[in-house]
Amino acid sequence: METQPLTPAPKKIILDCDPGHDDAVALLLAHGNPDIELLAVTTVVGNQTLEKVTRNALSVATIAGITGVPFAAGCDRPLVRTIETAPSIHGETGMDGPDQPESTIVLDPRHAVDLIIETVMAHEPGTVTLVPTAGLTNIAMAVRKEPRIVERVKEVVLMGGGYHVGNWSAVAEFNIIIDPEAAHIVFNEKWPVVMVGLDLTHQALATPEIVDRIAAIGTKPAKFVIELMEFFTKTYKDAQGFEYPPVHDPCAVAYVIDATVMTTRKVPVDIELQGKLTLGMTVADFRTPAPDDCHTSVAVDLDHKKFWDLVTDAIVRIG
Amino acid sequence: METQPLTPAPKKIILDCDPGHDDAVALLLAHGNPDIELLAVTTVVGNQTLEKVTRNALSVATIAGITGVPFAAGCDRPLVRTIETAPSIHGETGMDGPDQPESTIVLDPRHAVDLIIETVMAHEPGTVTLVPTAGLTNIAMAVRKEPRIVERVKEVVLMGGGYHVGNWSAVAEFNIIIDPEAAHIVFNEKWPVVMVGLDLTHQALATPEIVDRIAAIGTKPAKFVIELMEFFTKTYKDAQGFEYPPVHDPCAVAYVIDATVMTTRKVPVDIELQGKLTLGMTVADFRTPAPDDCHTSVAVDLDHKKFWDLVTDAIVRIG
Amino acid sequence: METQPLTPAPKKIILDCDPGHDDAVALLLAHGNPDIELLAVTTVVGNQTLEKVTRNALSVATIAGITGVPFAAGCDRPLVRTIETAPSIHGETGMDGPDQPESTIVLDPRHAVDLIIETVMAHEPGTVTLVPTAGLTNIAMAVRKEPRIVERVKEVVLMGGGYHVGNWSAVAEFNIIIDPEAAHIVFNEKWPVVMVGLDLTHQALATPEIVDRIAAIGTKPAKFVIELMEFFTKTYKDAQGFEYPPVHDPCAVAYVIDATVMTTRKVPVDIELQGKLTLGMTVADFRTPAPDDCHTSVAVDLDHKKFWDLVTDAIVRIG
Amino acid sequence: METQPLTPAPKKIILDCDPGHDDAVALLLAHGNPDIELLAVTTVVGNQTLEKVTRNALSVATIAGITGVPFAAGCDRPLVRTIETAPSIHGETGMDGPDQPESTIVLDPRHAVDLIIETVMAHEPGTVTLVPTAGLTNIAMAVRKEPRIVERVKEVVLMGGGYHVGNWSAVAEFNIIIDPEAAHIVFNEKWPVVMVGLDLTHQALATPEIVDRIAAIGTKPAKFVIELMEFFTKTYKDAQGFEYPPVHDPCAVAYVIDATVMTTRKVPVDIELQGKLTLGMTVADFRTPAPDDCHTSVAVDLDHKKFWDLVTDAIVRIG
Ligand SMILES: [Ca+2]
Ligand SMILES: [Ca+2]
Ligand SMILES: [Ca+2]
Ligand SMILES: [Ca+2]
Repeated sequence: METQPLTPAPKKIILDCDPGHDDAVALLLAHGNPDIELLAVTTVVGNQTLEKVTRNALSVATIAGITGVPFAAGCDRPLVRTIETAPSIHGETGMDGPDQPESTIVLDPRHAVDLIIETVMAHEPGTVTLVPTAGLTNIAMAVRKEPRIVERVKEVVLMGGGYHVGNWSAVAEFNIIIDPEAAHIVFNEKWPVVMVGLDLTHQALATPEIVDRIAAIGTKPAKFVIELMEFFTKTYKDAQGFEYPPVHDPCAVAYVIDATVMTTRKVPVDIELQGKLTLGMTVADFRTPAPDDCHTSVAVDLDHKKFWDLVTDAIVRIG
Repeated sequence: METQPLTPAPKKIILDCDPGHDDAVALLLAHGNPDIELLAVTTVVGNQTLEKVTRNALSVATIAGITGVPFAAGCDRPLVRTIETAPSIHGETGMDGPDQPESTIVLDPRHAVDLIIETVMAHEPGTVTLVPTAGLTNIAMAVRKEPRIVERVKEVVLMGGGYHVGNWSAVAEFNIIIDPEAAHIVFNEKWPVVMVGLDLTHQALATPEIVDRIAAIGTKPAKFVIELMEFFTKTYKDAQGFEYPPVHDPCAVAYVIDATVMTTRKVPVDIELQGKLTLGMTVADFRTPAPDDCHTSVAVDLDHKKFWDLVTDAIVRIG
Repeated sequence: METQPLTPAPKKIILDCDPGHDDAVALLLAHGNPDIELLAVTTVVGNQTLEKVTRNALSVATIAGITGVPFAAGCDRPLVRTIETAPSIHGETGMDGPDQPESTIVLDPRHAVDLIIETVMAHEPGTVTLVPTAGLTNIAMAVRKEPRIVERVKEVVLMGGGYHVGNWSAVAEFNIIIDPEAAHIVFNEKWPVVMVGLDLTHQALATPEIVDRIAAIGTKPAKFVIELMEFFTKTYKDAQGFEYPPVHDPCAVAYVIDATVMTTRKVPVDIELQGKLTLGMTVADFRTPAPDDCHTSVAVDLDHKKFWDLVTDAIVRIG
Repeated sequence: METQPLTPAPKKIILDCDPGHDDAVALLLAHGNPDIELLAVTTVVGNQTLEKVTRNALSVATIAGITGVPFAAGCDRPLVRTIETAPSIHGETGMDGPDQPESTIVLDPRHAVDLIIETVMAHEPGTVTLVPTAGLTNIAMAVRKEPRIVERVKEVVLMGGGYHVGNWSAVAEFNIIIDPEAAHIVFNEKWPVVMVGLDLTHQALATPEIVDRIAAIGTKPAKFVIELMEFFTKTYKDAQGFEYPPVHDPCAVAYVIDATVMTTRKVPVDIELQGKLTLGMTVADFRTPAPDDCHTSVAVDLDHKKFWDLVTDAIVRIG
């Protein structure tokens, strides 16, 4: 008779990001949570240029004291479309607000695409989860270069899209619309894809109560998060009329840690590449029950308390 | 000092339809409700061919005893796309179920497009409401042939579209997707457009309780409606998995009678003409408050009881 | 035994135009050539607004002494797209250059769409040729309003498009791209369509020799044409780098008069409605011999001398 | 003082191909011509699956006695679209006709994308020409993974497209339409692109006289080419109605050897990604003289004799 292990093995993830205020929180959550094993961090053009978001990723790593994890830079532009960044939300550096330390971390010499491929292929099948919290250029390139990763990857838990909510157009979300062809590639491979989209992340608001809780931690990373949130609050109010900013990216990490932090629904999702008003929309078909071989699901309702407990707990653990 | 008239003037409408089970109910509601003055009924290809839906409209008129209202046939195909009808929902006749009487009503010799134009131009500005419950081909043709109707029409209250719900594709509704160019024309003219879409009409279910109430009326028109609902219930279950059928078209008429039968929200709406997955989507932009000159609104929540009270009351009055 | 008549019956045409320097020449050719019976002239938004091109049409009629032919105004905007006019080529009036006389001609009260329909239906099947030399909005509206004209019309000989040449984009021509949906409608009806496109009309250059021949006629209409050509020469040089201006529209009329004025080739042609670079392209498929039921052909090579002989002869006859 | 060398340095090329009957001839030409230094051969899905075309490439190398050149396999499917191969032209193996020897050549372990990048980066800037004769997936992936190759590459001389001719649709060519997004990437990078398209290659017909000349060589590679041409002649006649088959791919190699083998014209070229009838069209804008910074040119007229002299001469040299 087999016994349930007391501590399950941590979940191995590769975080593909474009820090980004919320990417920073996602990285802190991944690093500080004991159930996550961070195999690699890769960067990609998105909220700002590749150079800037890569610098930001290293800054966050320095602040959080992340060591022994390879960081690699990836694609500096989307597959087909021209570069579109988000200074109205993330500022000129891509992570405006706090002072950023000079990082002494050295980038892995490999291209992010190769680091992703090699990391996935080096681990047991079904053990590595990809967590993209940016445009999907790196992931799309990786799967086209090495199609075998589709069967090796456990699942893709991505922040992006929205089945009923858009932010960069009426019906499209930033991470998807900046490289819709890459998103089309990722959503159409037969790996499990969990889309943590705006429908969910617009529930992950950094309310004053949350900000106060984090401030009370009092550590340097906590202070860093607070300064991120101050800037994020302001730009989300000015640019998009939000009272409190939605902290998108850690939601995807939180799902990997504990899937009960949100409800999800299995539904076919595809990416619109031709629409004039709908380019980059994550089109979900809710008309009938999802077919048995449906490999995509969407996040629906967030357990707000559980989510922020995970985040604050991670910040506390980082110390 | 002017006094409030005890009985407000009835609302003048032109019903442009493709009967159609729910169009039939819409026509009965328009005829039987004392607050509606039915100026004209026009038909257009949609649920079935023009010939069939025109025959159906005359059958309903005969059953309901409608006299003195011009009926005219309009366009026999969409502007640009090829014809797509809905036999899976409405059967081969377009109004399968009840026996249809031979009608002795003679069609108006005018083309529906001209009847619409002439009727609008013959009445005081701001007094005529267009109520399309089918593809928008006739309305689009009318506004292109006589652009002055835009300023003459009071508003366009149409059944069609859906901001978060589709039926003929994941995100598009039948009336819009069968002639998306016509819909684009209608939604982009500066008249007030109230979109009574699937978000609303999927609340207008003909539950057994409703069917029983109508059956209890016991008249010939009531029996006719019951037979329509029996067929509609079956096809909606078989083709789209509904437990009870949504009775779309009378919702638009009900709004004209009493706008409090539903809530609406002002929001910019445009029609996607290029999308591969989203063709014919009614794209609503909820990101920010609607601008002051926004001329489109969408129906949100139905007062189910009030709606069916209007319908049953109309059937009772028809006698 | 029937004998061949010495003089064949003149060809009955409806000229649908947007004068327009070359439309003016087309109208003069149609009026002055004895083999053409001009049944009606209709106008449509294109080179300039409907109001301007209609005024221009009446001016030309006055100069040419056209009487007994109904002139009617049609659509004031394209079916779906917003209005795009061509002041860079035709000036602010749409027919800049010569002074325009005030016309005393009274417009037919009918809409152009109805005039087209009624004229076609009033004549024997197979006797009326439509000659559109502008955007195809009126013709598209007519065929959607009265589908029976497709079988009644002899053929549609239109100026527009280009199988290997564009002017308003790399691969699209003005008359088609300003209302591509209308063009799609017209090209997809099963009547014979002869596309006299830029491939042909760029051979119809008003060289100095041609201009001199017309100047030598010495009449008021000849002087009018010369002044038109002076302006046209200048704008075609400035805006599009032509040494001599291509006089497009009379080529279509010339084909009706004498098909040997050009060679044509049977080939399937369809209109691109979705392209980003190719919107409004007249896509001709030359890969294999045209199928037997192919109803479209394109003009290829012009007999330059024969064409200009027809034009100058018509101007001479007008007197 | 430096003197002009009597023999110029050979042109270094990377041949990216999908053999393919004409790819085979291109490979023989590149190998047999003394002015070409073949740095690498890479394969990509196209005429057949990656596995098949890679096997074919190795077969040709064995027959031609190519040694010391790395061969690497690349992408097994297009970036976004699903796989479309061309068995109607190239048969089930992708190179039907001749018997194919088992090859003992061992593939380079690197992915084609990396072999391309590393080869380009290992040579002096401006010395390596890319010669793609297949879909552009590998090249697009390479330039997205390592953007610096744009400035390092001398030029891209590709077989594909057609400014006035299509084969896989009315206006699109196979190599472009099978991966239009990749083509869009390649044509929009600022390296010099010479498009050797169908306008040119449909002049490179393997006439009986040409076939006889090659047959007269009498070597095993010559016999191999003859057997390729026999099959190619038959499928091009059956599938596309050609009397003699156009031997596309060696035209690109011939241009690198001696640019005077054809005329070219500088013209902006872009790829249509949205068109319904025009997807994958290489849209060339001939309306005005090409701007100074235009980096694309198209092949226009072939010197038929000079081209086939190059090919036969190469086969003779291979021995
Ligand atoms: Ca992010
Ligand atoms: Ca209806
Ligand atoms: Ca014109
Ligand atoms: Ca090839």
